[in-house]
Amino acid sequence: MNRTIKQWTLSKRPEAVPTEDCFALVEHDLPELKDNQVRIKTHFFSVDPGMRSRLNGDSYAAALPLGNVIESAGIGEIVESTSSRYAVGDMVMGGLGWTQGLVQGDRGLQKLDPALFDDEVRMTAAIGILGVPGLTAWFGLQDLGRPESGETIVISSAAGPVGATTGQLAKSMGLNVVGIAGGEEKCRYVTQLGFDKVIDYKAETDLVQAIKKACPDGVDIYFDNVGGDMLDAAIVNMRIRGRIVVSGQISEYNRPTPVGIRHTTQFITHRLSMAGLVVYDYANRFTDAQAAMAKLIRAGSLVYSEDISQGIEGAPQAFIGLFNGNNHGRRLIQIS
Amino acid sequence: MNRTIKQWTLSKRPEAVPTEDCFALVEHDLPELKDNQVRIKTHFFSVDPGMRSRLNGDSYAAALPLGNVIESAGIGEIVESTSSRYAVGDMVMGGLGWTQGLVQGDRGLQKLDPALFDDEVRMTAAIGILGVPGLTAWFGLQDLGRPESGETIVISSAAGPVGATTGQLAKSMGLNVVGIAGGEEKCRYVTQLGFDKVIDYKAETDLVQAIKKACPDGVDIYFDNVGGDMLDAAIVNMRIRGRIVVSGQISEYNRPTPVGIRHTTQFITHRLSMAGLVVYDYANRFTDAQAAMAKLIRAGSLVYSEDISQGIEGAPQAFIGLFNGNNHGRRLIQIS
Repeated sequence: MNRTIKQWTLSKRPEAVPTEDCFALVEHDLPELKDNQVRIKTHFFSVDPGMRSRLNGDSYAAALPLGNVIESAGIGEIVESTSSRYAVGDMVMGGLGWTQGLVQGDRGLQKLDPALFDDEVRMTAAIGILGVPGLTAWFGLQDLGRPESGETIVISSAAGPVGATTGQLAKSMGLNVVGIAGGEEKCRYVTQLGFDKVIDYKAETDLVQAIKKACPDGVDIYFDNVGGDMLDAAIVNMRIRGRIVVSGQISEYNRPTPVGIRHTTQFITHRLSMAGLVVYDYANRFTDAQAAMAKLIRAGSLVYSEDISQGIEGAPQAFIGLFNGNNHGRRLIQIS
Repeated sequence: MNRTIKQWTLSKRPEAVPTEDCFALVEHDLPELKDNQVRIKTHFFSVDPGMRSRLNGDSYAAALPLGNVIESAGIGEIVESTSSRYAVGDMVMGGLGWTQGLVQGDRGLQKLDPALFDDEVRMTAAIGILGVPGLTAWFGLQDLGRPESGETIVISSAAGPVGATTGQLAKSMGLNVVGIAGGEEKCRYVTQLGFDKVIDYKAETDLVQAIKKACPDGVDIYFDNVGGDMLDAAIVNMRIRGRIVVSGQISEYNRPTPVGIRHTTQFITHRLSMAGLVVYDYANRFTDAQAAMAKLIRAGSLVYSEDISQGIEGAPQAFIGLFNGNNHGRRLIQIS
């Protein structure tokens, strides 16, 4: 039984956009199991932009210590167990990290029932559209966006897993849905998802005017995954009583000094509200949301895209690529 | 009967802080009354920071045309009437403007019942603590601040009419109340009002640290009348699920380019929400709020301060002084 696995650890804190030398691929011998432990063989793990802030510790969670395995959601198989909770062969999801395998206690994992998954709702959806990105879209839109049929929503990073899900959910609720994405390929993808309009920010010099042109009557909801100038451009296009959902601020994560927004007086004149969310606050409603989204997927009104790379070696590159704007759907690493 | 009155008109649009040459004191002959009109002799009018944005038209209302009388709330006496609604001697409030008198139709005024007022609740309260500033404090705090006993609120421009009212209302609801004001005299006034702590921003070099020191456990509600760097300093001190009430942004009104805020990622990490208000949206609840505040005034738990200048000539100086931070209570002009 091979107990030697490879895993990516944090070797240096990034200063701006992370570089490959921030990560070290190390070999590790998994220990013998104590009582109530399991050994997991990783099948998939995710690379997430939200992990960026953990690398420096400027977020709500503490900084990841140097030398620790990079954290992420993952799907794995129980290959050894001293726990009554899990048998060899069980599939589980949890915070596995960028690793080929691990030994851990039998808490903090969720067993996946293979009967719930098929070609339409794949098991990887558990850490994608039915996981953090999809649930962020669901609760951000419903609880903070408070959408009403006929309203106009603008969604930044519309080709990303959160944005793509938000747009389709909004469409199914009768909204006029406008996406912002970078480059022709992504814009084509966003259009295929059923968005009414898409703005290619890389082809625009004046975002305020671009949004105004796409939304001549103004914006009721701005679902923001980007922050900075894009958020500010949306703010000046908001209608009276507009809602801004702060889901992600990817343009800010790698900056030594944040850019932020200028137009706070619009909050008075246009009675705007802006609120941010951390999806784990809604944990007691996850199951209902997942069931509702699985139903929409099977009905064909919610599609999701996965961008799967093979092999643990490419994880840092896949992660760094997120900040160069080349992500398209949920980015996963498959470990064969 | 003297029909010649003096009034202040807009002669030039201000570029930054308004200067005296933006205003012209002109003599005007009031016309003969047509049917259903009244002639009003002004007793008091207010000078309001919110008027600043009307001078350039960068707000939700259109710009005031050059040559028009400067607008404001006022209290006056009916001195001539062809209306069945008003008799000579009636006291009214309405948007009288910076004028000694005016002729207008009999709509858009509110009759003041002298029996409702006394030494405790003076008639000038109708355009002060029971008018726009007091109602802004009431609805901003209750509807957007959603205060709970034991929480900590920070209030900027705490010696101004909105801030002073907000702080006393919050205190009566069991909050820990911290004010920010400029200069020893204002800070003394804020302390006299019953605020638990006051920060003299003119004596501080680092507002983030000053707020942190005054609120070591963080801020639940930030009631903002200022904007810019002060708002940003409050944001980094907010507790999880903190609420920011955008009541005024006086630091931004005279700037060619707004300064805004930097720390939008805090909205995610700390689940913050920020919302602005225009008090007229709550018009159908004004009467109840005024009755509740009048009761607090008579009970001695809500005091208000008026800064009354005599004579129409000083109105521009009184207005300009608002932006130099030398206001203290509600600023009114009394016309003898």
